[in-house]
Amino acid sequence: SQIAAAIVSLGLLSLALCVSPSPPTTLDAHYASSPPVSSSSFKPQPAPAPENPSDNRDPDLPRFRIAEVRKHGADSDHPWVIYGDKVYDITDWIPAHPGGQVILRAAGGSIDPYWNIFTIHKNQYVYDILSQYLIGYVDQADLVNGKPAQDQIEDPFENDPERHPSLITRTAKPRNAETPAEALSAQFLTPNELFYVRNHMWVPTIEDSKSDDYRLTVELLDGTMKEYTLRELKTRFPSRKVTAVLQCSGNRRKHMSDDSGRQTNGLPWTSGAISNASWEGVLLSDVLADAGFDLSEAMSGSSETQHVQFMGLEAYGASIPIKKAIDPQGDVLLAYSMNDEPLPRDHGFPLRAIVPGHVAARSVKWLNHITLSDEESTSQWQRKDYKCFGPNQTKVDWDAAPAIQELPVQSAITTLKLGKWLDSKIEPNVLKNDQDQAVTSQNPPQQEISMSGYAFSGGGRSIIRVDVSLDGGGSWTQAYLLPDCVSKNGMPSPCQGHGAWSWKRWVFEGSVPLNAFKEKHGGRPDDP
Amino acid sequence: SQIAAAIVSLGLLSLALCVSPSPPTTLDAHYASSPPVSSSSFKPQPAPAPENPSDNRDPDLPRFRIAEVRKHGADSDHPWVIYGDKVYDITDWIPAHPGGQVILRAAGGSIDPYWNIFTIHKNQYVYDILSQYLIGYVDQADLVNGKPAQDQIEDPFENDPERHPSLITRTAKPRNAETPAEALSAQFLTPNELFYVRNHMWVPTIEDSKSDDYRLTVELLDGTMKEYTLRELKTRFPSRKVTAVLQCSGNRRKHMSDDSGRQTNGLPWTSGAISNASWEGVLLSDVLADAGFDLSEAMSGSSETQHVQFMGLEAYGASIPIKKAIDPQGDVLLAYSMNDEPLPRDHGFPLRAIVPGHVAARSVKWLNHITLSDEESTSQWQRKDYKCFGPNQTKVDWDAAPAIQELPVQSAITTLKLGKWLDSKIEPNVLKNDQDQAVTSQNPPQQEISMSGYAFSGGGRSIIRVDVSLDGGGSWTQAYLLPDCVSKNGMPSPCQGHGAWSWKRWVFEGSVPLNAFKEKHGGRPDDP
Repeated sequence: SQIAAAIVSLGLLSLALCVSPSPPTTLDAHYASSPPVSSSSFKPQPAPAPENPSDNRDPDLPRFRIAEVRKHGADSDHPWVIYGDKVYDITDWIPAHPGGQVILRAAGGSIDPYWNIFTIHKNQYVYDILSQYLIGYVDQADLVNGKPAQDQIEDPFENDPERHPSLITRTAKPRNAETPAEALSAQFLTPNELFYVRNHMWVPTIEDSKSDDYRLTVELLDGTMKEYTLRELKTRFPSRKVTAVLQCSGNRRKHMSDDSGRQTNGLPWTSGAISNASWEGVLLSDVLADAGFDLSEAMSGSSETQHVQFMGLEAYGASIPIKKAIDPQGDVLLAYSMNDEPLPRDHGFPLRAIVPGHVAARSVKWLNHITLSDEESTSQWQRKDYKCFGPNQTKVDWDAAPAIQELPVQSAITTLKLGKWLDSKIEPNVLKNDQDQAVTSQNPPQQEISMSGYAFSGGGRSIIRVDVSLDGGGSWTQAYLLPDCVSKNGMPSPCQGHGAWSWKRWVFEGSVPLNAFKEKHGGRPDDP
Repeated sequence: SQIAAAIVSLGLLSLALCVSPSPPTTLDAHYASSPPVSSSSFKPQPAPAPENPSDNRDPDLPRFRIAEVRKHGADSDHPWVIYGDKVYDITDWIPAHPGGQVILRAAGGSIDPYWNIFTIHKNQYVYDILSQYLIGYVDQADLVNGKPAQDQIEDPFENDPERHPSLITRTAKPRNAETPAEALSAQFLTPNELFYVRNHMWVPTIEDSKSDDYRLTVELLDGTMKEYTLRELKTRFPSRKVTAVLQCSGNRRKHMSDDSGRQTNGLPWTSGAISNASWEGVLLSDVLADAGFDLSEAMSGSSETQHVQFMGLEAYGASIPIKKAIDPQGDVLLAYSMNDEPLPRDHGFPLRAIVPGHVAARSVKWLNHITLSDEESTSQWQRKDYKCFGPNQTKVDWDAAPAIQELPVQSAITTLKLGKWLDSKIEPNVLKNDQDQAVTSQNPPQQEISMSGYAFSGGGRSIIRVDVSLDGGGSWTQAYLLPDCVSKNGMPSPCQGHGAWSWKRWVFEGSVPLNAFKEKHGGRPDDP
């Protein structure tokens, strides 16, 4: 229909969402190396020999009750995990595990739900490594259809926070939810509880009372480490505020799938995988300098350090180029506050990176480790995801494609309604558009409509104009850009930072031939 | 045809050339003020009363021979100009002239050819001001059809340099000429003599032997001035090399006109208003700091100085935001060398600004004055030109539209030929494209073709992929990007600077159904 064909352009035609042709299946290179020879002197105590006649598993290996496995949790000297119906002592695997200590999250229980998240493990290389640590089987008494009963498997998401019911859930575990369209238009700063949620895993639990003791480790290229508590970050470095959008690279993926007529992998986001907030924290570059990193050498381009890797508590990792990290006008924060409140749990409590102008996937939440390196983060999300390929490319070379950093221009219609825009905050005359538009020779009766939306560009580049077409691109009119980033009534602008890191909201009034509605929609336009 | 429809995309669809809806006609605000009261005690000596019966001009005013006017040149205490057949003493106008001393360029002769360049003067306000300085008429003996004879009018361009005959001239006076297509593809660094030329006026003449004494003035917001000779710039500041494209904002304007079916104003550039060179000079920010400008205050965002205005010898002016000027990774140069030779006269000899990633209109040539200001350059080229408007906008608000700075993505096909690409420098296998392309059911005979081109984005953003379609957008294949910016054979990369300031050259081989040529072109494809 004419309405559905409405396009919002920026002089630059937008588009360019990214296709991840297939979920990552390649194994991290680190796995290919041999596991270390076991140096553990621990040997599991043999349990009673299996007597259940239906248990035809290797009778030479002991059986363990799940209650017994639970005792070998993360704090145990000998952590165990269950995979399927087998029990493994992973004590010696931990130091060689590419994901580090995160494997302990599964200790004392079943590792299956975690590998359903970290699909990189579903590979023969990993099974072969794991098999070396086999110590026995789950007792038949705890199995249902040959697997541990569902209620015996710990839900990694059981401690996730409560969420606002207006968020539009795409997946519950891990939580991925969009900001509702009305909220996108209604406020320049998205309220914390309506800010879109993009979690790759569970939400780590840090007690409020202990958050000031939360520790961040900064590791230089030569291996030197320096540790900061959150209290030290807050007190030893000047605090900065930056107003910035975070946007998932998959924002509007559903529109791309629908318009191209082809399936894409990934969450079917519509227009709500983007939100805007005021962030407070300390400058990453201040902390790097304090940790001993030579900023001026890096500025001259002669530093071996080329990337800043961020690692989160739940094992998510990503990196940004050193150029952005040290840019004195780049505003990269280690943030502890969001819209003047402590970070909500879903958004990284108590500490996260904020990389304005870059894809949100680099603004690592629950940040606890920063590594300066000559290479990018080795995480699957840096190496095997969040990259762009040509529309024809089905077999892709992940290593050759650069990781997405700065986002291209984005523009979306978020509300569309019949009649004029009723917002007393906007002077009516600014919405008056040029009436020179071509009218059909029959001059059909016109239906007034109003629209609103947002436009955003990565890299701190300003949106200077939003053009709207109501006739499929035949003619164009300029939308009114809301003056969110100007001083008002003696109050300073709410926009802080060196770049245009926030979105531009816009409104538009126009009219379309009435029969465009009658013929195609029975009087109701499409939901944009 | 299928070939002509070939589109080169970048994930982002390009486009966005700018329309300047009409040549500037509004008068600079400075003119509106009254001219100063004449304080000159000079009175022209009355010449013999007109005796020619055909001379019916005001008999109370004297007549002057053009030879007499010539004595009142730029070095005279009382400079005169001719406008039409009238003679004016502009001594008292000079201090009030918004363009400053440049008016002296016309002194001792006719001002008409200059006003044909500076069209802003063709306005009643200006005629009214000028009329106050009328002192007489050109003698009838020097007039042909009531105007000074053509050969009596000095040609402002007579000292322009010789140019390479391969340049494609768009206008001769002032000189505007494109780099030929073959040169765009052939070399990563465009040879100086084939670098496109965009002159708004004549080429200033500075003698080689005096170039080290050439003076640059830096003026701070409080009016403090500091002067540097070119010799001082070269010896007192570290030199830097930056490899950067310059591109006219109108590059490919002809394609926009042709494709839109609508006329655009401005030079009808095809793909050659862009070139790439290695520039050497000193950092603008180093010189600003030396002149007393507080860089760290500016970095914090609290400086009143918001713009750096550049003024050229021939009176061209433009400005850039302070953010770019002080960006330690922004690489803004005061350049005196181009591809390891002194700047050619056409390209700003002996000193010019180089603002990598920004429209070339800000890289002011023949630079002799830098002014730090809270506002943009007041020149017509900053205020009434080089701005973007919506496709529907015919009456435009120049003041509300921001000046173009960083350029959007650009991509052009520069050569197209039958058969494979024959370039021994490129390994044949890298050009091998996926053969999975759809073939018509009849499998018509295929014609192999080769293409090459360039892609470029402003703002230092890398081109990471060029997609080519041979079927009007139905399917796409990736072009091969030439590895111009990598180290080879132990030699360092020829690309210097912090951003991706250079273009990416690409080549592509593919094939199209032979009948596409036969039917539409008699065997010859369109010139792209």
